[in-house]
Amino acid sequence: MAITRILIANRGEIALRIHRAAHEMGIETVAVHSTADADAMHVRLADSAVCIGPPAAADSYLNIAAIISAAEITHADAIHPGYGFLSENAKFAEIVEAHNIAWIGPKPEHIRTMGDKVEAKRTAGALGLPLVPGSDGAIETTEEAKRVAAEIGYPVLVKAASGGGGRGMKVIPDEASLETLVSQAKSEAKAAFGDDTVYIEKYLANPRHIEFQIFGDGRGNAIHLGERDCSLQRRHQKVLEEAPSPVISPEERERMGGIVSKAMADMGYRGAGTIEFLWEDGKFYFIEMNTRLQVEHPVTEAITGLDLVREQIRIADGKPLSVTQDELRFSGHAIECRINAEDAFTFTPSPGEVTSYHAAGGMHVRVDSGLYAGYRIPPYYDSMIAKLIVYGRTREGCIMRLRRALEEMVIGGVKTSIPLHEALMQEPDFLNGDYSIKWLEEWLAKRQAD
Amino acid sequence: MAITRILIANRGEIALRIHRAAHEMGIETVAVHSTADADAMHVRLADSAVCIGPPAAADSYLNIAAIISAAEITHADAIHPGYGFLSENAKFAEIVEAHNIAWIGPKPEHIRTMGDKVEAKRTAGALGLPLVPGSDGAIETTEEAKRVAAEIGYPVLVKAASGGGGRGMKVIPDEASLETLVSQAKSEAKAAFGDDTVYIEKYLANPRHIEFQIFGDGRGNAIHLGERDCSLQRRHQKVLEEAPSPVISPEERERMGGIVSKAMADMGYRGAGTIEFLWEDGKFYFIEMNTRLQVEHPVTEAITGLDLVREQIRIADGKPLSVTQDELRFSGHAIECRINAEDAFTFTPSPGEVTSYHAAGGMHVRVDSGLYAGYRIPPYYDSMIAKLIVYGRTREGCIMRLRRALEEMVIGGVKTSIPLHEALMQEPDFLNGDYSIKWLEEWLAKRQAD
Repeated sequence: MAITRILIANRGEIALRIHRAAHEMGIETVAVHSTADADAMHVRLADSAVCIGPPAAADSYLNIAAIISAAEITHADAIHPGYGFLSENAKFAEIVEAHNIAWIGPKPEHIRTMGDKVEAKRTAGALGLPLVPGSDGAIETTEEAKRVAAEIGYPVLVKAASGGGGRGMKVIPDEASLETLVSQAKSEAKAAFGDDTVYIEKYLANPRHIEFQIFGDGRGNAIHLGERDCSLQRRHQKVLEEAPSPVISPEERERMGGIVSKAMADMGYRGAGTIEFLWEDGKFYFIEMNTRLQVEHPVTEAITGLDLVREQIRIADGKPLSVTQDELRFSGHAIECRINAEDAFTFTPSPGEVTSYHAAGGMHVRVDSGLYAGYRIPPYYDSMIAKLIVYGRTREGCIMRLRRALEEMVIGGVKTSIPLHEALMQEPDFLNGDYSIKWLEEWLAKRQAD
Repeated sequence: MAITRILIANRGEIALRIHRAAHEMGIETVAVHSTADADAMHVRLADSAVCIGPPAAADSYLNIAAIISAAEITHADAIHPGYGFLSENAKFAEIVEAHNIAWIGPKPEHIRTMGDKVEAKRTAGALGLPLVPGSDGAIETTEEAKRVAAEIGYPVLVKAASGGGGRGMKVIPDEASLETLVSQAKSEAKAAFGDDTVYIEKYLANPRHIEFQIFGDGRGNAIHLGERDCSLQRRHQKVLEEAPSPVISPEERERMGGIVSKAMADMGYRGAGTIEFLWEDGKFYFIEMNTRLQVEHPVTEAITGLDLVREQIRIADGKPLSVTQDELRFSGHAIECRINAEDAFTFTPSPGEVTSYHAAGGMHVRVDSGLYAGYRIPPYYDSMIAKLIVYGRTREGCIMRLRRALEEMVIGGVKTSIPLHEALMQEPDFLNGDYSIKWLEEWLAKRQAD
């Protein structure tokens, strides 16, 4: 069908990222923006721009009617949703396709399936992805609890079926304490949710977050692009990502990559997707699948040389995958630092005018950002204002280069998370690649206590 | 000896480039600067900075005594000269070494030899590098001229031995016109230089400028890093460089690279060097050797993954070459655009305050520049203010990416050569890789005439 003009239904660095890939393919771009973003770089660089509403995202970047109108007015023949906003909204994808506009994303039914926690796990299990072992539903008796726990192996976790936020959840270290802890969990669940149903699953003490990037052509072919380690998180928000993971061997990458790409091929998945796992003691446990481009995709681009947005556009245009699994080579190491407009250690947001700006440059340093001196960071959206992605032949070389790149970045007028990244680059645990998803919060707590 | 602190005897983007490599190796940097450069980025980023004199380069960046003093005051244990200024000054190299400071450059005797045109050609010939065929000195008689010209093959060039600037120079198309043209050349030479000595050499009608990057360890080992095509020149100034050359096959690269690296190994050459050739009809003709880092070195970095400044520092520190010829891989295509503060088509310099600045970013885009919004470009030095280096898996992909990167660059307040590069990216001859060292000037002349 030959895409000629893409409407980018997003803002900030990812809107710029998509614009870049499009222009490199000779495709025009249409920016959409709220009134708060009229002076944003993604608006300045696009071939045309349409204002779609007031600052509140619900009225602009989530405003399906306004976005579809903008596409029709500008004769856009494709829409790229970026990440966040409408990117995992199956209904939006369907509306786009119903308007004969190419949807640069997965099939709507796959977005829907993977967006439902229970359905996603069921599907993943059926496709052969490893799940967190546990009771296949509610635990009725203490005997049943003991049998399941023994099968899984201690420690196990008892969790409220209606629960959330840790209430009705207990770690059971051994069989001796099981009966007491299960009954405590039931009481808490009853009190908190009016439902004492509980289930048991394997307890992961210090897992890592490891995710596989995959691409499918929608016709039964799929490849994996290796893993990313995104264990450095605060309140479930990724702070820094790297590829490859310090703990995954090439053999393990090939084995697990083979499993995920076979699953995606069997599913008939189309476009970019990420399969997220917890990983502990050499084992993977599926947690969820993101049916969109991830913030951290550039680390995969750095070690594979593949332009992931270009690949998405090609697939939406009906073209085959540009590489086969056998042609794909992994080389070197890449780390991405998310730079947010916020206090580096208290995380208080810091919007406002950027009075001076100097992006790090030089060899193997990539900055994805719409910042410029004089730009006003609006207070309405996500605080991420730049991504610094650094490549090196080795992890050590990558870290040395990242240190000097962080030194060079100047973002004046607002507080940023640069000092957090600089501090992380000095931490022995990070340097040794020895960290789980709990590490960053523990480190921050200790730092605050000191 | 372990270098710990490098004094960078240069300014602008190359001073920043060296700073970056040093910091990535954990080495401190000392900047030197004239009073005109006190606010320059290379001064801001260095660990310490010393003012070495007034704006005029002769009193600052060429002031050997001031630079050596700065090194002694700051306890720098190495000096990197960058390119230009003192980088090919053998005496400076000797003084540096006499002060027990590591000289990050070739052995002084090799700088001296290659800095002398006649000596350089003699040495190159003795080392087996192909020279422009010609009379081995003055032509005495018409008979001798005819014999030499027949040997070389018409057309040939008759040149004044004392000459320069094209005076006393004639292209001889065939034997019939030889006698007349040689005698005209002699008369012109006599009138212009008081010496009618002439010699004959092969006439290259539309040669390309193709140069090989080499590295030697100073102990008889040397490698080549492939070629760069720098044929796009105006008044002998390179404007845009690419690697690999569109006209060199992998076999030819290997063959010629083997010849140059053997020559450098035989010479015992140390550090980075560039062997420049004219190339026509599949044949190379040595013109000169540069015993320093080149402005265009990043295109070689992009296609080899090797950090050339790091390699220079390692060698100066007595370490071996970090790769062997067999380990080195060439991959993809890279183009560098030199961005000057000047009118893009009249070339009138345009110093002054940079009122806004936005560097191109994204995948495989590298900007080496000390620019920032508010920076004042001083009128005293070279007009180059930034280098934009873009990599792609293919030449076509590289050009598409370069177009979008050029679109993105914002340098407000001064005129720049960005529009020249944008125009070049639309030229069929450039897109086809079909250009000689004469192409750009002819294109500019035609453009002006239109």
